[in-house]
Amino acid sequence: MSTPSLLILPGDGIGPEVMAEVRKVIDWFGAKRDLAFDVSEDLVGGAAYDAHGVPLSDETMEKAQQVDAVLLGAVGGPQYDDLDFSVKPERGLLRLRKEMDLFSNLRPAQCFDALADFSSLKRDVVSGLDIMIVRELTSGVYFGEPRGIMTEGNERVGINTQRYTESEIARVARSAFELAKRRDNRVCSMEKANVMESGILWREVVQKVHDEEYPDVELSHMYADAGGMQLCRWPKQFDVIVTDNLFGDLLSDVAAMLTGSLGMLPSASLGAPMANGRPKALYEPVHGSAPDIAGQGKANPTACILSFAMALRYSFDLGAEADRLEAAVEQVLAQGVRTADLMQAEGDTPASTAEMGDAIIAAL
Amino acid sequence: MSTPSLLILPGDGIGPEVMAEVRKVIDWFGAKRDLAFDVSEDLVGGAAYDAHGVPLSDETMEKAQQVDAVLLGAVGGPQYDDLDFSVKPERGLLRLRKEMDLFSNLRPAQCFDALADFSSLKRDVVSGLDIMIVRELTSGVYFGEPRGIMTEGNERVGINTQRYTESEIARVARSAFELAKRRDNRVCSMEKANVMESGILWREVVQKVHDEEYPDVELSHMYADAGGMQLCRWPKQFDVIVTDNLFGDLLSDVAAMLTGSLGMLPSASLGAPMANGRPKALYEPVHGSAPDIAGQGKANPTACILSFAMALRYSFDLGAEADRLEAAVEQVLAQGVRTADLMQAEGDTPASTAEMGDAIIAAL
Ligand SMILES: CC(C)[C@H](C(=O)O)[C@@H](O)C(=O)O
Ligand SMILES: CC(C)[C@H](C(=O)O)[C@@H](O)C(=O)O
Repeated sequence: MSTPSLLILPGDGIGPEVMAEVRKVIDWFGAKRDLAFDVSEDLVGGAAYDAHGVPLSDETMEKAQQVDAVLLGAVGGPQYDDLDFSVKPERGLLRLRKEMDLFSNLRPAQCFDALADFSSLKRDVVSGLDIMIVRELTSGVYFGEPRGIMTEGNERVGINTQRYTESEIARVARSAFELAKRRDNRVCSMEKANVMESGILWREVVQKVHDEEYPDVELSHMYADAGGMQLCRWPKQFDVIVTDNLFGDLLSDVAAMLTGSLGMLPSASLGAPMANGRPKALYEPVHGSAPDIAGQGKANPTACILSFAMALRYSFDLGAEADRLEAAVEQVLAQGVRTADLMQAEGDTPASTAEMGDAIIAAL
Repeated sequence: MSTPSLLILPGDGIGPEVMAEVRKVIDWFGAKRDLAFDVSEDLVGGAAYDAHGVPLSDETMEKAQQVDAVLLGAVGGPQYDDLDFSVKPERGLLRLRKEMDLFSNLRPAQCFDALADFSSLKRDVVSGLDIMIVRELTSGVYFGEPRGIMTEGNERVGINTQRYTESEIARVARSAFELAKRRDNRVCSMEKANVMESGILWREVVQKVHDEEYPDVELSHMYADAGGMQLCRWPKQFDVIVTDNLFGDLLSDVAAMLTGSLGMLPSASLGAPMANGRPKALYEPVHGSAPDIAGQGKANPTACILSFAMALRYSFDLGAEADRLEAAVEQVLAQGVRTADLMQAEGDTPASTAEMGDAIIAAL
């Protein structure tokens, strides 16, 4: 196989800082493990808007379609708040998700043992927590038409449309069942079938895919509001959660925060297999662009580094190398190296973004 | 003024059991405080479906429109899961909300000091917590058209529509600002303006109502996913939260669970003032019908009793009497009386629903 290609899109805020540490890790794999990647870099979000007047240029979109995997930092910032909706930084990310058809967004919510006390939840509620949230990423209210702000009579009305087809639901359900088979074999599907017809169809299709294709996986259904409650009450009851784009946005953020390790959590967004058998893929940290600390060398690069570990596992079938990288992160945490977001006592001096990256390299 | 009228709709599951305790409390106020209520009772949800084939009859709807306040227990149960969407128990509740035009749903998330250890969150994160979530209740994706499961080409598609008009947003915003003025004077509005046009209009209108009518209230905006995170991280940062119907459904459930006191939390749903100056109003506990424990005398009646306290305050302007009832509940908790949902050690014998109700009467 030819050298695998990576497109790096650092984006806005702390994106460039954390991505610089990922570059070090990529270089380490090239030098020490003989795993060369063909890396290119480009702009997305506010950075792309500043350069080109759009949050993702057609050229960058085209590149993203060609490469084996995209690594994204973060998008957004207050300086872009007043931009027109169509050119907001987020639209760049949403365009990537939509045009690459990355329908399955994997968001592990894992509690790192060394960080369990950092959660606002009690230690026994979160220690050892390991949930995988599978969020549908290319449809639902994020993309449904009609949408917009219209005038009706003498006032304006804001409209968005939640839309799910059977095949859109079925493919993300399959991806959840496949993951469950390699984990604890349990899937909980969440919607609001008690108030939304789209939720009724969601529940029905997930059940059908289960019955016909994955009868051995344990499947349960929960209303999304009850799901949010249960995540806060006893998150360890879950293995894989599958849900739609908007509920997934909220529930995965709640789950991420529970772990106390927001700066540690990666994500993978996967689409259909390409000609070379690899899935279309984009990897990004769960955290945002954190404009308040951008440019200060304070950001935690771990979530972005672990996103690269997910790339090794899901795009390049290098599970053992991904394990190696994840183990290095665990080791650094065990050593007590902490960026500012992971510190409890005011007195201690936190590690900088670069120091954290270097510590992970050293542990490798 | 003539004797105030109350319509009691116990509903399904634990609804009738907890409502029986509320009746005791109402009787107590009649006998000891000379506050007579003209009480009638009727069916809603599965109970109404069983009797009439619809989850709310036109007669009951008409009664609800006439009375000063409606008190509802809970609706739903697994035996109704396969009913057609249009006659599901939830449709009865939704019809009441919509036809009474109860646009402002007040959901206090309060942590009772005696119960702080019962939360899955650390004590210092939740003790003393007192948030008010104001959820828009008559519009958004719950009621927007078009909706349904349609056929397009050779597959089905589930569709719901999120819709908010300027006036719908403005009136619920006003209700949040009014509440904030009587509390800590801070409102945080939550939406997904970064991905939904309806969220853009929401943010704009809330800001406008603020600037023109409530400039002295502190207003902030947050994306709903970040809001969910922040509720889990440090909920005490909030005073009043205002949000739409669907986000409110999820976020208020998360907030309720944080307190550790789900069986304790009441809600009020308020509409426009009637001819007598009282708002259209429905009061109900935040918890559901809990079919798993229904009929066993295990349910905690406190949330429903505190919903009656909210009725005293918001419908009948009897704030001092509401305080009295709330103080009685606090006292019972301090005495250590606990229904099963509030018990931590397996060994202890829990109070029954009736014992909890009696203890509150005794404390009154
Ligand atoms: C930045 C934003 C568009 C995005 C979303 O809403 O999907 C983010 O919150 C996420 O969860 O990836
Ligand atoms: C029972 C159901 C229709 C309802 C809702 O979704 O609004 C419930 O979850 C609530 O929060 O009151």
